[in-house]
Amino acid sequence: MATAPLISDEAASPEVAAVFADIRATRGTDFINNFWRVLANDPATLKATWERLKEVMSTREGGLDPLTKELIYVAVSVANGCTYCIHSHTAAARARELTDAGYADLLAVIGMAHQTNGLATALQVPVDEVFQV
Amino acid sequence: MATAPLISDEAASPEVAAVFADIRATRGTDFINNFWRVLANDPATLKATWERLKEVMSTREGGLDPLTKELIYVAVSVANGCTYCIHSHTAAARARELTDAGYADLLAVIGMAHQTNGLATALQVPVDEVFQV
Amino acid sequence: MATAPLISDEAASPEVAAVFADIRATRGTDFINNFWRVLANDPATLKATWERLKEVMSTREGGLDPLTKELIYVAVSVANGCTYCIHSHTAAARARELTDAGYADLLAVIGMAHQTNGLATALQVPVDEVFQV
Amino acid sequence: MATAPLISDEAASPEVAAVFADIRATRGTDFINNFWRVLANDPATLKATWERLKEVMSTREGGLDPLTKELIYVAVSVANGCTYCIHSHTAAARARELTDAGYADLLAVIGMAHQTNGLATALQVPVDEVFQV
Amino acid sequence: MATAPLISDEAASPEVAAVFADIRATRGTDFINNFWRVLANDPATLKATWERLKEVMSTREGGLDPLTKELIYVAVSVANGCTYCIHSHTAAARARELTDAGYADLLAVIGMAHQTNGLATALQVPVDEVFQV
Amino acid sequence: MATAPLISDEAASPEVAAVFADIRATRGTDFINNFWRVLANDPATLKATWERLKEVMSTREGGLDPLTKELIYVAVSVANGCTYCIHSHTAAARARELTDAGYADLLAVIGMAHQTNGLATALQVPVDEVFQV
Repeated sequence: MATAPLISDEAASPEVAAVFADIRATRGTDFINNFWRVLANDPATLKATWERLKEVMSTREGGLDPLTKELIYVAVSVANGCTYCIHSHTAAARARELTDAGYADLLAVIGMAHQTNGLATALQVPVDEVFQV
Repeated sequence: MATAPLISDEAASPEVAAVFADIRATRGTDFINNFWRVLANDPATLKATWERLKEVMSTREGGLDPLTKELIYVAVSVANGCTYCIHSHTAAARARELTDAGYADLLAVIGMAHQTNGLATALQVPVDEVFQV
Repeated sequence: MATAPLISDEAASPEVAAVFADIRATRGTDFINNFWRVLANDPATLKATWERLKEVMSTREGGLDPLTKELIYVAVSVANGCTYCIHSHTAAARARELTDAGYADLLAVIGMAHQTNGLATALQVPVDEVFQV
Repeated sequence: MATAPLISDEAASPEVAAVFADIRATRGTDFINNFWRVLANDPATLKATWERLKEVMSTREGGLDPLTKELIYVAVSVANGCTYCIHSHTAAARARELTDAGYADLLAVIGMAHQTNGLATALQVPVDEVFQV
Repeated sequence: MATAPLISDEAASPEVAAVFADIRATRGTDFINNFWRVLANDPATLKATWERLKEVMSTREGGLDPLTKELIYVAVSVANGCTYCIHSHTAAARARELTDAGYADLLAVIGMAHQTNGLATALQVPVDEVFQV
Repeated sequence: MATAPLISDEAASPEVAAVFADIRATRGTDFINNFWRVLANDPATLKATWERLKEVMSTREGGLDPLTKELIYVAVSVANGCTYCIHSHTAAARARELTDAGYADLLAVIGMAHQTNGLATALQVPVDEVFQV
C-alpha cells in the first residue's frame, strides 16, 4: 500500500547500507522498521532524517528524558493522524517502560488537549498578556 | 476578537462564580485566564471542562508528572495550530520549571515529529507487525 | 496582512463587478466581505467559488436547512483553524437566528468531537462491522 | 490494529461494567461499539468521556436537535481525518433518519467549507470588522 | 469501507452517465476511479466537482504546468492525511512523468515544510514586515 | 507575540553568528528573517534546520526547480495553517518570479485539493488497485 517500494538489505546501495548499519548499531537490534526501508528510496533524505532523529532523540544535559520525548512524539502523531507514527512511537514508549497508568495519562491529556484546542479556536479566545514573552 | 464576550467577575452567575472560585483555590492565584472567561458564556460547558481538566492534570499514582503533561499539551496544541493554547501551555510549562534545555528539546522533537509524520504519510508506510498489539 | 490586495468596487473588472452584483442581489445587502474582495484577484476562481457556494447553501427539497449548513461550516472551520471562516460563519449563523442555547450546544459538540477524535485516533480503534456500508 | 486491547464483557471490572450498563440502558440496545471497549482500558477516562458525551448529546431547551449534533460531529471528524469517528457518526446520523438529500447536503457543505477554508487561509484574508463581537 | 456505495455504469442515472462520459473523453481512458463512483450518489455534487476540477487542472496562459499542479495536490493531500488523495495524485504525477529525482525532491520538501511549520507555529514567530503585502 | 525572544546580531553566540553568516552568504542579502532569529535560542536546532533546508531547496540533477519547491512549501503551509510560513514562502515564490497567473493557479489548485480531500475523507473512498505500487 506504500507509494514506493520497501528496500530490502539485498537491494540497499552502499550509502543506504551504511545508514542501516548505523541504525542497527545505535539501537542494538537487527530490526529495521518499514519507515527507513521506504525512505531508503532516496538515500540523501534517509541519511539526513536518520542523523537528525538520532541527535534529537539522544539525551543532552538538562534536556528531556527519552520516554518524555516519545510521549511528545505520540501526541504530535495523533494530532496529525499519522497511523504509522502512532503505532511505532507508542511501541517505542512501551519499550521505554511506559506504565499502564502513564499510558492512561497520555491518552487523557491528549483527549483533553484536543477538546480545549477546539473550544479555544471556536471562541477565538484572545491571548492573555501574562502569557506573552 | 473573540466570538463571544469575556465574562467578568461582576457579570458571573452564581454557577460561574463557583467555578471561578474553584479555579482560584486549586491554582492558588486570583488570576482567571481568558479561556475560562469566554467559556463562562455556557456555565454547563465551563463546569464540565474545568472539572475534567482538574482531574486530568492532577497526579495519580504511577502516572505522568505535571510538567510532562504540559509538554504533551503544548505538542498537541502546536499540531492543531491553536495560538491561545500554545501560549497558555508554554507559560504553564515554564511555570513548572521547564528549563531552557528542556524547551529546546521540546521544540526539536516537535519539529522532528512533524517531519517524519509528513514523510510517513506521503509514503503511506505500512505498519510493521511488531508494532501491533 | 493578506497575501494579495483587496479589490475595491472601483478597481473591479467587469467580470468581478458582475459577481459582486450577484452577491449583493442574492444576499439583499450592499456589503461585500473581504473574502470575495481578496478572491477577486482571480476572476475565474471568484466566479466559480461564488456560484458553487450559492448553490450549496441554497435550500433543496428534503435537504438541510440554512442554519444547519452554517453550523456545519463553523465546525469544519474550527477543525481547520481558519480564523476568517470561524468569524464569518459564526456571524452568518447568528444572522440566521442561532440562539444562545444553540451556540452553546454547537461549542459543546465541537469540543466533545475533538476529544473523542483524539482518543479514537490515539487508540486506532478498529471500525465495527455494523458501521460499514 | 488498535494500540490497546478491546475489553470484553467478561474482562470488564465492576467500574467498567457499570458504564457499559449505562450505555446499554441509555441507547436501548445491547451493542457496545469498539470505541468504548478500547477506552475501557482506563476506567476513569471511560466514565468521564461517556458521562460528558451523554450530557452533550442529550437535548436541552432551546438547544440543537440530535440529528444536527450528529452532522456537526461528522463534519469535525472529517476535518480531523478520524476514520473511526466518520464511520460511527455517519451511522448514527443515518439512524436518526438523515435522508439521502440531507446526506448529500452534508457532503456538499463539507466540501465547500474545506475549499473556502483553504482559500481564506492561503490568502490570509483579514477579518471584517462587522464579524467581530 | 466507503460510507456510500460505488455507482457502477449500469446503476448510473443519465446525469451521472453524462459526467462519466466526459471524464472518459477528457482523460482518453475508459477507467473511472472510485472517487467519482462514490461521489455519483449525488449527481449535482459530482457534476460541479468534476467541471471545476477539469477547469482548474487544465492549462491557462502563463499558468502552472500540469505536473506542478499534481505536486501541489499531493502536498495538500499529505498535510490533510487523505489516504485516497495521496495515492491517486501520486499516481497522476507519475503518469505525468515525474522522475525518481523529482519524487525524492517532492518528499524532501514536504518533510522540511512540515518541520519548519511545526517550529514556526510552536514559537509563534511574528511575520516580518517585508513579507506583508 | 513569539514564545521566545528574537536573537539580534549583537546577542548571537559564535555558533549562531556562523549560521547567520551562512544564511547571508547563501541568499546574497543582509536580511535575516524572524524564523531564524527565534530558532537561534537553540543553536543546535538552528544549525541542523538551516543546513537541511539549504540542501533541500538547492537544485539537484533531474530534480524540481526552485519555484516549484516554493509552491509545494506554500501548499503544505496553508494546509497546516501556519501563518508565518504562508507569508514567508508566498514572498519567496514571488521573489522567484511567480506570475499572477501562476499564483492564481496555485490558489485554485489548493482550494480544489482541500475540497476533494474533504469529500474523499468523508466518503472513505477505497483506494483503486491501479493506484497502488
